Amino acid sequence: MSMLLPIFALLAAAQTAASPPSAPTPKPTAAQLAAAAPAAAWAAIDPKDLLLLDFADGQRSVIWLAAEFAPAHIANIRTIARSGWWGDATVYRVQDNYVTQWGDASEKKPPAAGIDRHPPAEYEWAWGAHGRAVANPYRDAYAPRTGFTPSGWAVAGDGKAQWLPHCYGMVGVARDLAPDTGTGGDLYTVIGHAPRHLDRNIALVGRVIDGMAALSALPRGNGGGLGLYEDAKMRVPIKRIVLAADLPPSERPAYQYLRPDTPVFAATLEARANRGGPFFTVPAGAADLCNLPVPVRKAPAPR
Amino acid sequence: MSMLLPIFALLAAAQTAASPPSAPTPKPTAAQLAAAAPAAAWAAIDPKDLLLLDFADGQRSVIWLAAEFAPAHIANIRTIARSGWWGDATVYRVQDNYVTQWGDASEKKPPAAGIDRHPPAEYEWAWGAHGRAVANPYRDAYAPRTGFTPSGWAVAGDGKAQWLPHCYGMVGVARDLAPDTGTGGDLYTVIGHAPRHLDRNIALVGRVIDGMAALSALPRGNGGGLGLYEDAKMRVPIKRIVLAADLPPSERPAYQYLRPDTPVFAATLEARANRGGPFFTVPAGAADLCNLPVPVRKAPAPR
Repeated sequence: MSMLLPIFALLAAAQTAASPPSAPTPKPTAAQLAAAAPAAAWAAIDPKDLLLLDFADGQRSVIWLAAEFAPAHIANIRTIARSGWWGDATVYRVQDNYVTQWGDASEKKPPAAGIDRHPPAEYEWAWGAHGRAVANPYRDAYAPRTGFTPSGWAVAGDGKAQWLPHCYGMVGVARDLAPDTGTGGDLYTVIGHAPRHLDRNIALVGRVIDGMAALSALPRGNGGGLGLYEDAKMRVPIKRIVLAADLPPSERPAYQYLRPDTPVFAATLEARANRGGPFFTVPAGAADLCNLPVPVRKAPAPR
Repeated sequence: MSMLLPIFALLAAAQTAASPPSAPTPKPTAAQLAAAAPAAAWAAIDPKDLLLLDFADGQRSVIWLAAEFAPAHIANIRTIARSGWWGDATVYRVQDNYVTQWGDASEKKPPAAGIDRHPPAEYEWAWGAHGRAVANPYRDAYAPRTGFTPSGWAVAGDGKAQWLPHCYGMVGVARDLAPDTGTGGDLYTVIGHAPRHLDRNIALVGRVIDGMAALSALPRGNGGGLGLYEDAKMRVPIKRIVLAADLPPSERPAYQYLRPDTPVFAATLEARANRGGPFFTVPAGAADLCNLPVPVRKAPAPR
């Protein structure tokens, strides 16, 4: 019964079905294009920029730190990770269609030693400050110009300033009311439709590139209209928060991103905006910036 | 320690803090505007258009059916609900940042008696077909025009055609490859950033207006690259799927939507695009269509 199959059948499934001999080759998907990209199109992510959240149940979330975008906050984050301050960190807030937040649920711990307690507002930069961005040809609801830096980050802007967008999986620094900027001790990630109104109002410091489900599939909280876990027993302990660079080399995970300044990256944009294959009838001819994540993968084992 | 407070403190919290007497009155939020709206700005949702998913653990998800947008599919859904066909329904697919899907995990059940096995592609309509839409003044990444029908639905379109957008919480009919349209026996809801590329490619039939967490906070599946639960034990049984109208009046939940053709609704749009209060430093001046959900509430108890 065809209608009882799950939606969004894989192209592969379609190709194994009996097709007329004249059936055109299905247009490759963005994932297929990325998988076929030459090794030179992939760039390594520095292990200093990989923050690992290890949960008691064995799950791991991997955050790619946007080092060049929020250097003061990320210096704090590295210091906090090395200090042991996160030894009793928990996930204490999960608000549906918004954010999951972790750090010090008590809100009472003194800040970790050696951090900048009042880092500057690392919210926006001059357009092009992080290298010449590859332009995104598709319209954005929030910013007149968007693109992708050579270093692998989507940026929104207006040709004068640029900033990181609050897309699904982006990680930011929890803060109190303006002009506080937060220290980095409490972080959140977006688990719903992109709350782009937060852009330029909070410091974004990275992106979850693996193990997102450990943060998104948690029970929602009910406290304070903010998704706080009112019952402390709901808090999810994080066994360890560590930089990949601080692990022995044999234990370090390694990741790569698809370089935006490559033809294959441009092809992935087009493939996402105009999806081919036997499922789609009407191509969108458009793609939201947050539906154009820069592809990331685990580094292939050396041969 | 101000930076240890959760982000996004409520306006209420800010107002209770010591403020200089000259502090300006904070701009009301969209939620505050809706809460203060006159009773006449709210319209009742027909109980025939409320589909209830009752889970074994007591959670309930409430789906508002978009009856005028997909009449053939929704006739099927009402027939299926009354037939008992969903008696063994489960959630069998949860794909992170995409969809949760439920229905017949076996993919082998014959369709429910009396349904249209091949409903038409209810994907788009003439612009204005559902009443004169209130224009959304903000730019959309996918469609040149967007708005809100008097009946409470966000629509995207181009001035000739209009269609429902795949926003967070929207419910669609799972189908196999085109031109199959699905029957309504298997449904999904969006649990991540809006996959608007699905617009006009699948029949949308409603919106989750309450109890979304029962569908979004589930463990993610790993099967087939589609989030299928490979282990059948992970499937989440749905104890009952029933129309509110088919319950005794005393057991019927009642909901209302804020009428888009009211001044207060227009004010909520502006309040979402340009957030005030002590948290936001830079107003977005924009709002994605999927960040502008038509407000819905439980009907107040009669006095």
